[in-house]
Order: sequence, then C-alpha cells, then structure tokens
Amino acid sequence: MPQNIQIHLDNRPVGEAQASNFKHVVAETPPLQDGQVLVRHHYLSLDPYMRGRMNDAKSYAAPQALGQTMGGGTVGEVIESRHAQYAVGDQVVGMGGWQQYSVVNGDQPGALRKVDTTHVPLSAYLGAVGMPGVTAWYGLVKIIEPQAGQTLVVSAATGAVGSAFAALSKARGCRTVGVAGGPDKCRYAVEELGLDACIDYKQHSSAASLSKALRAECPNGIDGYFENVGGMVLDAVLPLMNAFGRIAVCGMIAGYNGAPLPLAYPALILTNRLKLQGFIVSEHMDVWPTALKELGLLVATGKLRARESVAQGIDAAPEAFLGLLKGRNFGKQLVKLV
Amino acid sequence: MPQNIQIHLDNRPVGEAQASNFKHVVAETPPLQDGQVLVRHHYLSLDPYMRGRMNDAKSYAAPQALGQTMGGGTVGEVIESRHAQYAVGDQVVGMGGWQQYSVVNGDQPGALRKVDTTHVPLSAYLGAVGMPGVTAWYGLVKIIEPQAGQTLVVSAATGAVGSAFAALSKARGCRTVGVAGGPDKCRYAVEELGLDACIDYKQHSSAASLSKALRAECPNGIDGYFENVGGMVLDAVLPLMNAFGRIAVCGMIAGYNGAPLPLAYPALILTNRLKLQGFIVSEHMDVWPTALKELGLLVATGKLRARESVAQGIDAAPEAFLGLLKGRNFGKQLVKLV
Repeated sequence: MPQNIQIHLDNRPVGEAQASNFKHVVAETPPLQDGQVLVRHHYLSLDPYMRGRMNDAKSYAAPQALGQTMGGGTVGEVIESRHAQYAVGDQVVGMGGWQQYSVVNGDQPGALRKVDTTHVPLSAYLGAVGMPGVTAWYGLVKIIEPQAGQTLVVSAATGAVGSAFAALSKARGCRTVGVAGGPDKCRYAVEELGLDACIDYKQHSSAASLSKALRAECPNGIDGYFENVGGMVLDAVLPLMNAFGRIAVCGMIAGYNGAPLPLAYPALILTNRLKLQGFIVSEHMDVWPTALKELGLLVATGKLRARESVAQGIDAAPEAFLGLLKGRNFGKQLVKLV
Repeated sequence: MPQNIQIHLDNRPVGEAQASNFKHVVAETPPLQDGQVLVRHHYLSLDPYMRGRMNDAKSYAAPQALGQTMGGGTVGEVIESRHAQYAVGDQVVGMGGWQQYSVVNGDQPGALRKVDTTHVPLSAYLGAVGMPGVTAWYGLVKIIEPQAGQTLVVSAATGAVGSAFAALSKARGCRTVGVAGGPDKCRYAVEELGLDACIDYKQHSSAASLSKALRAECPNGIDGYFENVGGMVLDAVLPLMNAFGRIAVCGMIAGYNGAPLPLAYPALILTNRLKLQGFIVSEHMDVWPTALKELGLLVATGKLRARESVAQGIDAAPEAFLGLLKGRNFGKQLVKLV
C-alpha cells in the first residue's frame, strides 16, 4: 500500500484564496475491493473553477467539502486492478483530485477513461484534449455558432481553454483576436497559437481604453466573444458586439475572489440583440466524443500546440493554483506528480 | 385636402425627455398619386422604444430624424384611395406616426394591413393584437420556451407587453408573477390579468428587498423572466433564476434617459447557466401571423382584457408619452385622434 500525500481544503477563503486554506495530509491507499482500480497520478490539472468550489455558495458545483482532498482532473497509470476492463499499465484520465494516488470504482460511469498516447501526450488529456478543450469547443460550436469570416474574441487567450478556442476558431475561418496579460503572452498568442492579433489588457487602465484597442483589431465589429474573465474585458467587448452577437460565458475569474464585478451597460444586450449564455461543460457530456475527436486531431497534426506551466510535486499544487488565479501561469497549469 | 396636425421631433433630449423636444406643426395632406391611400388615424400608439429613437445613438432602430414627424404605430380608416386593394372605409393598421393623417404607398410591403373589428376592437391592433402582443409572444415562445408548471416573471406587468405576456404565459400553464408600480396596478394584474401574484416594486428601496419579496412568490425559483425595465428589478430577479433559466430582454426603460444602469452580478449568468437574449420583434416578421392568431383569439374570447390609457387629441401625445416613460400610464398608452 503506497503512502499517499493529499492536499485537503482546510478552511474557506475570505476574499483572496491563501496557501493557508490548504493542508498537507499523509494517508495510506486502502486495499482494493473487487471492481476497483489503483491509479498512480502523473499529472494533476489546476483550473479556475476550483476557486468557486472553495466557497460555500450556491453555484454550479457543490462546494468542496472541508477536510477532504481537493477535487481535480488527473491523468495517470493503473498500477493495480481488480476490474476486468483495466490492466496494470493502462493510461487513464479521471477525477483523482489533489493527491498522488486514487482508488477508483471502474464501473462508475465517467470515473475513468483509457487514453491513447501514440499521437497525443498524456498531459494533453487534461488540457487541449480534455475538459478545457471541450469547454472551448462547446462555447464556440454550440453558443457562438460562428460562420467563416466572422470576428471572434477570446479572453485569457493563452490559457488552456483560450488556446484550444484559438485553434478551433481559426479552423473555421474566423478572424480571431485574443486578450491576454503581458507582452510575452500576446506574442505567443499570435506567433504560436495563430491568433490574428492579441491585446495586452495590462496596458489599459479602463474599459474604454481597452475597447479602443480592440476596435482597431476588429474593424468589422465582434460577432462572438468567449468570456473567461469578466470585469473590464467584458465591458470593453460589449460595445463592439455586432447585432445578433453571441457571448459564451465560460468564466469570470476576475470575480472569483468575491469582489463585485458589475456589468456597466447591460442595455447593450437589448440594443444589439445579443445572446449571453453561461455554460458548464460537464453538463453536456453528449458533445464530448465529437469535440475530443476534433481536438485530438488538431493536437496530433500540430495545429494546436498548447503551452503548459508545470509545477513539480503535489506540495507545489497550492502555490501553483494561487498563481493561476493571478494569471501567473502561461498556458495550461499542471502539477507533475511522478 | 384636410389639414394635418403633426408632432415633430424638434431637438434631442439631454437626459430626461421634455415636452420642449417636440413641436406642433400644421401641414396639408398632399394629393394622392396612383397607388397611394389616405388614412385618417383613429388611434396613435405610444411605446417606450420611441425614447431610444430620440437619441442620436447607435441602436437597433435608426434615430428619429429631427424636424420630421415622430414615427409610431397607428390604426385608422381609409378615406381616399388610388390603390385597387384598398377601399374607402377599410380599417387599417400601419406606421402613420404622430399625426392625424398619413399618405401611404399601398404596395410598400408591411406598410398597411387591413384588420377586422368584428371580434377585436380597432385599438387592440396597436396593443394585444399588435406589436406589443407579438413582442410578448416572441420573448415567451422563442426565447423563454416555457414548460407547463414552470415559474415565469414579467416586469411592467400591466403594460401592453406585460398584459399580453400574462395571458400567453397562463395559457401555457405557467405560474406567472408580475412586477409593477403601485397597489392599483398590482391588484389589477392579479384580478383582471390573472397573474398568480404581483409585486409592487415601489415598496422596495433595494434589489435585495425586492428579491426577498419575489422569492416568497416564487418558491420554486424562476425559470423565465421577461425583462421590460432593467435596473433594480433585473438585479432582484437574477439571483432567483434557476439553472438553465432564460431571460428575454425586451426593454430597459429604467435606463432610457441615459443614466448608467449596471448589472450588479453578471457572474450569476455563469453560475446558473443562464441565457439572456435581447430581441426586437420587427426583426422577426415570420412569427407575426402565428402570434397574431393566438393573440386575436385570446382577445376575442375575453381571456386577454388589456387595459388602455387613452389621451385625447394629437397635441396630448407628448405629455402622454413622457408620462409613459415615468410609468404614469396604466395599460396600453394610446392617443385618440378622432
């Protein structure tokens, strides 16, 4: 029975999340029951939605329980199996949480999925070919419903979701403009992700100024916006939306610490006949196979080369997560566990 | 050639609209050309959207031109015709504007429609069986897409749009709760329009207080909201929306004078996976026949008894319109011209 280091949620944040909200716990992995599988995690995924779950508030996901291992996506390898469909050595993606090992009931629907790393690296199943990629796909295909030649904007453009969105949007012939923080990310967005332009929001102290910069890169207005951040960026985009524009609301990371994040001019929803729609990709499992197929092909053919920020070791997870909330990561934030 | 009193837009409002923005003008009706029809207006419709057109701003409708007759819906009678399809005595609905007579090209698509007043009074074609009724129908049927047993809320519940919404929503088996200003309107909403409850927003000085009152009448949460006003009411409704709720954004009258009208918690769009969609009914002409058929039947069978506020004479139009913007009307605001 290997020793299993876990990171628990010890107490809930008041305002900004802190390292002291988390607790390092050493547990034993229990002996397997029939039908169970022991997975050794290679990578843990860190994602903005986890901040919402740290609050004890009505939201799309149940709050993370106190005194329990933080939830989260993982990829790893089966090291012991008492389930007929899983063999030692199988590579699997699941929701193993912030720990080194997990014991999974192989029959639980959606709990574990075998993956093929011939053309796609294992870690990509937590990013471009995983939940963040499908998130981008759903917002683009099901909410924005773009047509070739339209102009789309994505915030947090170099993140796991944003970079997948960029590849999917370009593949559909759309002019695609990103918003990101800092010159390095913006250069990467254009040179590596293939965005047509990327605006550094840190160069702008007001929504009006950011809006002016966006307008210069979107001379035909904006037909679709993929919202990852909220706040100033949303206020900057909204006045540039064309009639019948669509906004997929995927994240509002700017407000995750509880600060009020008002939308300045909601009347634009009416005057421009916009559709704003919030969504959670885990509620649309029916699209996953189609989306993963396209995303896998984009990665395998080199058309989606998503960057990763990799922290080392389970004890690095809290600091890496807090950095993610501040935009310090560059691309998909992972923790390498082996 | 009868003398034709017109109300022109003389200058644009700065902040609140004023009587001094309008000008009384006496014109002659020109002699008819071939294909034209002379209509004597019986009623002029006053609607909140007209306030938006008084501004010189990018919006869904072109701004109202200065020095021209204010646009607006009218019903009346053909008193002279040089068009084969219109005869003297025909009752017609059109966009005759704020004047006593209009000369209409009978061949212009959508310019004039003959109506039957056997079972539906002429003025209803400007309200329940006209643009406001179809507006309610579109928001309910095409955006909210209700299911029997769901809870819907409508603001400005006793207005032309709100009262049609109430009848259409109740006909679909929905619990329907209104928001209106003052005890008389709220009593009327329940006793005459058949709403299940109506909240008097004037009894509440904050969104939180209004939200609490709404919660008491919506014990199962809110599945659909028809937005006519914006501001505090929207902030009160948003936290009560159920997952996958739909908000049809039809009007934001609270902000029509240019005051900022921020939405306090847009993050709720994400956490509750809401859809907000703005629309303009004139862009969806394909639904009009279906909608008008249902609305006409509701009026003819007494299931939709919409109240009217009727001002007398064309020169009463400006004050009646300013009163409408302040919620002083009770039901559909009309001006009687004969």
